[in-house]
Amino acid sequence: MANQHGNGASISAPIRVVVDAMGGDFAPQEIVQGAVQALDWGNVAIILVGDQGPVEAELARYNVAGKPIKVVASVGKIGDDEHPVQAMRQKRQASIVVATQVLKSGAADAMVSLGSTGASMASATMNLGLMEGLERPCVGGPFLGLAPRTVLVDLGSNVDCRPTLLLSFAALGSVFARQFLNIENPRIGLLSVGAEDAKGNRQVQESLKLFRESHLNFVGNVEGHDFFAGRADVVVCDGFVGNILLKYTEGLGSALMSYLQKQLGDMLPPQVVERIGSELWQMTNLPRTGGGPLFGVNGTVVVGHGSSNAAGVAGAIGTAVRCVQIGLVDGMRQELAALSQGAKATQQPRPHAPAP
Amino acid sequence: MANQHGNGASISAPIRVVVDAMGGDFAPQEIVQGAVQALDWGNVAIILVGDQGPVEAELARYNVAGKPIKVVASVGKIGDDEHPVQAMRQKRQASIVVATQVLKSGAADAMVSLGSTGASMASATMNLGLMEGLERPCVGGPFLGLAPRTVLVDLGSNVDCRPTLLLSFAALGSVFARQFLNIENPRIGLLSVGAEDAKGNRQVQESLKLFRESHLNFVGNVEGHDFFAGRADVVVCDGFVGNILLKYTEGLGSALMSYLQKQLGDMLPPQVVERIGSELWQMTNLPRTGGGPLFGVNGTVVVGHGSSNAAGVAGAIGTAVRCVQIGLVDGMRQELAALSQGAKATQQPRPHAPAP
Repeated sequence: MANQHGNGASISAPIRVVVDAMGGDFAPQEIVQGAVQALDWGNVAIILVGDQGPVEAELARYNVAGKPIKVVASVGKIGDDEHPVQAMRQKRQASIVVATQVLKSGAADAMVSLGSTGASMASATMNLGLMEGLERPCVGGPFLGLAPRTVLVDLGSNVDCRPTLLLSFAALGSVFARQFLNIENPRIGLLSVGAEDAKGNRQVQESLKLFRESHLNFVGNVEGHDFFAGRADVVVCDGFVGNILLKYTEGLGSALMSYLQKQLGDMLPPQVVERIGSELWQMTNLPRTGGGPLFGVNGTVVVGHGSSNAAGVAGAIGTAVRCVQIGLVDGMRQELAALSQGAKATQQPRPHAPAP
Repeated sequence: MANQHGNGASISAPIRVVVDAMGGDFAPQEIVQGAVQALDWGNVAIILVGDQGPVEAELARYNVAGKPIKVVASVGKIGDDEHPVQAMRQKRQASIVVATQVLKSGAADAMVSLGSTGASMASATMNLGLMEGLERPCVGGPFLGLAPRTVLVDLGSNVDCRPTLLLSFAALGSVFARQFLNIENPRIGLLSVGAEDAKGNRQVQESLKLFRESHLNFVGNVEGHDFFAGRADVVVCDGFVGNILLKYTEGLGSALMSYLQKQLGDMLPPQVVERIGSELWQMTNLPRTGGGPLFGVNGTVVVGHGSSNAAGVAGAIGTAVRCVQIGLVDGMRQELAALSQGAKATQQPRPHAPAP
C-alpha cells in the first residue's frame, strides 16, 4: 500500500508521525515521553513540533541517540479556549499549524495532536482540504468500553447537521468500522427515540429517507439502549447529541466507580477494589486511551484526549500508524465517491430497502 | 389547599386517584394489585378504569370490602404502537380516555397511567387542556439514581422544540424542583456541549438568550458530565436528547450490572452480589419506581413506566397523591403566568443576568 501522499513509502518503511508536542494538558512532558515510548515499536519515526527550547529539553531526558526522532520548531500553541479559525489566522507559527504543514509537505505520513480538537480540525481542513463530496469533517469512533466495536459518529465536531452531512458521517463511519475494526459490511443505525421509521425529530426523519436510498447497510433507527444490544456497528447522530453522550458517559462511569469503591471498600481487598474501579472506568472512558482519526480530511490526523498521559500519547501514535497501514484515508475517499455515485444514480427514486 | 378542580375537598379527605387499569405491560394484574396496596396508606380512594370483567376479576382476588375502591367500565385500550391522536378518535371508550374524563368531571383529583405516554399526553391535552401560555405539555423529573434531585426536562415527549418551548419547560421544571423536591430557588441549566455561552447548536444558542432574560435562576449551559457534579437542579433539553439519555442510561446501568455481577460472582457471597447489582440498577433506573407527572396539563396526571410491577404502580399512585397535596398544578400555572408577564416586561431588552 502506498501512503496517502503517493510518495512511494512502502509498508515496511517506518511510518513517519508528526506530533504536536504543545497540545494537551501535560504538554510537552507527557507528549515527548509518549513519543519516545512509541519509538520502541521499531516501525515509527517521530517529528515533534513545538517551542524548541522546552521540547528539546524534554527530549534530552531520554536516550534517543540514533533513533528516528527529531524536533521541528514552532511558536506558541492554540488553546481550547480560543476560536480555532481566528487563532489560526493570528498564530501562523503555532504548533498545530506547523505540524499540519509538515504532514501536507509529505515529510510525514500522519499527524497526532492531543490539543484542541477544534484547532486540529480547522488546521487540517484548511491545510489538507476536505475529501471531495464532503461539507464538513467529523470525529467518530468507539466511545464506550462496554461496546468497544460500536462506532459513534459524530462525537462533537458538528452541532448542527443537515441530513446529507449525517449520511456522509455514516459512510465514513462505515469505512472506519470495516477497515479499522475489521467488521464486514457494517450495520448503520440512525440514533433516534424509537425503532420505527416514523419515530424521531425532523432531522432524523429527513435523514432516514436518504439512508434508506443509499448503498449503505442501513438497519434503521436505533435507540439509546441499543448501544448495549449490539444492534448497529455504526451509530450516527449529530455532534450535539454525540458530545453530550460522550461526556455523560465519562461522568456516569466516574460516579459509578466512586459509588462502588465506597460500597466494596470494606468487603474486598484494596487491590481488588482498585482493579474493579479501574475496569469500570475503562468501560466508560474508551476514547482517552487511543485517540481517534478525524474523518474526512485529506490526510491521517489523529486527535487524542487533552488529559492523555504518555501511554495515551503513545496509544494515539499507534492509532495513527494503524490508520496509515490500513489505508483509511483512501478507503474513505472511495466510499464518499460511491455515495456520490449512488446519489446520482438515484435521481429517480428507487424502492426503499426492506426494514431490518 | 383546595384541589385543582376547586370543589373544596380538604387536604385531610382521601385523595381520589383514577387509575388506567389497562395500561402497562402487566395490566390489569399488577395495576390492580398496586392500587390495592395503595389503599393501605389510608388517604387514598381509587377508581379503576378498564374492561369490566377482567378488572373486577382481578379485584375479586383481594379483600377490599368497605375500602374506597371501585371500577368504572371502559372498552379496550390504546397501545404503545398506535398513533395516540388517531387512536383516541377511533377508540372513544378506551381506558385512558375514560379515565381522563373521570378526572375532568371532578370525580377524581388525579390520574395515573402505566400505558402509552403518548396516549396519556394526548388524552390529557385534549380533555383537560393545556395551561395558558404553553404550546405543548412535557414530561420531566429526576431520571438518574446517582442524581436523584436533578430534574431532566423534556424526557421524550417533544422531539423538536422551539426556544420558547424550552423556556416553558424550564419554568415547569423549576416548579417541580421547588415544590416536589423542596429545592429553594432551583438552578436551571441548558444542556449543551460546553459551558460557555457561545457553545451549543442553534437551538441552544437561541434559547440561551431567552433564558438569560427570564426571571428564572439560570446558571448557563451545562454539559453531559454536569449531571454528576450537581451544577444545576433542573437540566433542560428537547425530548429527542432527553429520551436518548434516558434509554441510554437504562441500558448502560443494566450492562454494567451484568458485567460487575460476573466480575464479583466468585469473590463475594451471592446475596451481596445481588444487592450490589440491584443498587447499581437503581442508580440508573429511577423513573421506573415512582412515575412522574405530565407538566403543563390542567390536571394531575402521573405516567409510569410500562414495565412497572405492583410496587411501581403503587409508587406512581403515591406520586400522584403528593402532586395533589403540594398543589403542583396551581404552582405551574402561576409560574407560566409569571414567565408570560416577564416576557411582556422585557419587550425592551434588559441587561443580561451575570454569568455564574
